[in-house]
Amino acid sequence: MLRLLATCLLAWALAAAAQAPDPLPSWNDGAAKKAILDFVQATTTTGSPQFVPAPERIATFDQDGTLWVEQPIYSQFVYCLDRVPVLVKAKPELAKVEPFKTVMSGDREAIAKLPMEQLVKILTATLTGMSVEQFTAEVKDWLAKAKDPRWKRPYTELTYLPMKEVMEYLRANGYRTYIVTGGGQDFVRVYSQRVYGIPPEQVVGSAAATKFTYDKDDKPFLMKEPKLLLNDDKAGKPEGIHLMIGRRPRAAFGNSAGDREMLEYTGAGDGARLMMLVLHDDAQREYAYGPARGLPDTKVGAFPPALDAEAKKNGWTVISMKSDWKRIFSFD
Amino acid sequence: MLRLLATCLLAWALAAAAQAPDPLPSWNDGAAKKAILDFVQATTTTGSPQFVPAPERIATFDQDGTLWVEQPIYSQFVYCLDRVPVLVKAKPELAKVEPFKTVMSGDREAIAKLPMEQLVKILTATLTGMSVEQFTAEVKDWLAKAKDPRWKRPYTELTYLPMKEVMEYLRANGYRTYIVTGGGQDFVRVYSQRVYGIPPEQVVGSAAATKFTYDKDDKPFLMKEPKLLLNDDKAGKPEGIHLMIGRRPRAAFGNSAGDREMLEYTGAGDGARLMMLVLHDDAQREYAYGPARGLPDTKVGAFPPALDAEAKKNGWTVISMKSDWKRIFSFD
Repeated sequence: MLRLLATCLLAWALAAAAQAPDPLPSWNDGAAKKAILDFVQATTTTGSPQFVPAPERIATFDQDGTLWVEQPIYSQFVYCLDRVPVLVKAKPELAKVEPFKTVMSGDREAIAKLPMEQLVKILTATLTGMSVEQFTAEVKDWLAKAKDPRWKRPYTELTYLPMKEVMEYLRANGYRTYIVTGGGQDFVRVYSQRVYGIPPEQVVGSAAATKFTYDKDDKPFLMKEPKLLLNDDKAGKPEGIHLMIGRRPRAAFGNSAGDREMLEYTGAGDGARLMMLVLHDDAQREYAYGPARGLPDTKVGAFPPALDAEAKKNGWTVISMKSDWKRIFSFD
Repeated sequence: MLRLLATCLLAWALAAAAQAPDPLPSWNDGAAKKAILDFVQATTTTGSPQFVPAPERIATFDQDGTLWVEQPIYSQFVYCLDRVPVLVKAKPELAKVEPFKTVMSGDREAIAKLPMEQLVKILTATLTGMSVEQFTAEVKDWLAKAKDPRWKRPYTELTYLPMKEVMEYLRANGYRTYIVTGGGQDFVRVYSQRVYGIPPEQVVGSAAATKFTYDKDDKPFLMKEPKLLLNDDKAGKPEGIHLMIGRRPRAAFGNSAGDREMLEYTGAGDGARLMMLVLHDDAQREYAYGPARGLPDTKVGAFPPALDAEAKKNGWTVISMKSDWKRIFSFD
């Protein structure tokens, strides 16, 4: 009788396990999906030799090209360009000087050819010189209205469903998920909770300094200053992670040369580590660029051949959008 | 019968409430203790007009003079002075040049008179120029051995029990507690979890830049650079809070002019806010300085008369060590 009961219980447990919902339903079976499942299993199962205590479960995600579409240009740069007419309306004399003149012309080719120092002028004029609250309000307003020209949807819908599943799955297993982006920290914080379930304090990004000051009623506020405090790209990513988190990530996800150092830093720690790179090889459903198209490391978000070689050498797992992702967007 | 049951239940509930352990047993009854209890009650009771959603429950604490003893000199500066002989042993030529010569002389009066640029040389030599891991190991080693000359105990025991109770009480009510210190972020992170129950990612402090680089075996690491990235004092506190947390605190605790802007920033938000200042007026059990002794704003950790006036104007609550704290240290 006891043996029968035990057999029944075992059968029930196995059936329950078999019926447990797939935590990554938008992923096809394959090496990438298996790497994620194995990593979580190994680091969160009590008694596992690779068990990681909960406070040390940190996973970092690049944003542009890793969590959402970065082609043909970064959404935040679209924001900056869209803000230029507002600036010009307030200060009409700007319309006569570069780079605002070119931006106002609407000539996309000319805009794409603007030299770096002119681009910096656009970023400075549209991202600094106002209070944190004003900036947040402007970004919120833009996010509610702006649409990507290809999909005709808000930019925040162009997030990758499979990656959101990974974040959710990691969080369900005690990991804290951080965004570590070359994009603006204050920009991403406006929507990170709503879109990714990531609170503002878990967004590490490029940051302008702020200046604590007082308004005319003597009320204190923080002014966004035209001074770059943290350039959260390439080596700036592990540096930003140390500054803001103070722990080495256990898992890191990226897609470009800007993420190389973050993955190296993650991989240099002891014990189980997971490093993954999203390869954009799906021109039909999204875009194909980087090694998938044989491009050099000059294009935005490119995944250069050298990084491909490094991935092989370091045991980083490449995620093929084309073959690993069943669905790309939640509206697919 | 039902009425009897209801009466019994009510009596039981009241008795249970009356018997609930005091969350702040080291505090005497008074305005300060009441301010803390009222604030937590108002912001965490469902249906309260001042209810604060859990994600927004952020409380920030200055460290030196607010969480632990800062007299006669900051413990971290004692660390720096204690490291000088080690540096000199490695580089004997340093013994002949200032400020190391004076430090090696052991002449406390002469050390106290070193000008700022010489002090910066001591900080730079002892806090930078090594990997993050090496620095952490050195601080751990020092903390295990160093003792405060007055109490003959490790510095980490010179933490204020009543403030630890406040942090514990806030955390039990869904608040996340952060240290926001003018002291070194990497220094405080070494012991913040053990001593205060605060994890490294919740320590905001003055920070040197780090540089991502590679050792001779091509293994990446972060080098602490002689470049101040964040001066987390005065206006630098709200600026650091925005950078690292991205939310305005609901409660802030300090003790000196270095905390003024943090308290102002906290108080400038909507809804219930709690701002408190620890007044060192207990020369017998700890120290008396600042307005308690009528000192000007020149002494380390002073609570200047102007801040006292501002506290009154802004409704900040002053904590008197002498009358509000039943016990000061856990070894009392």
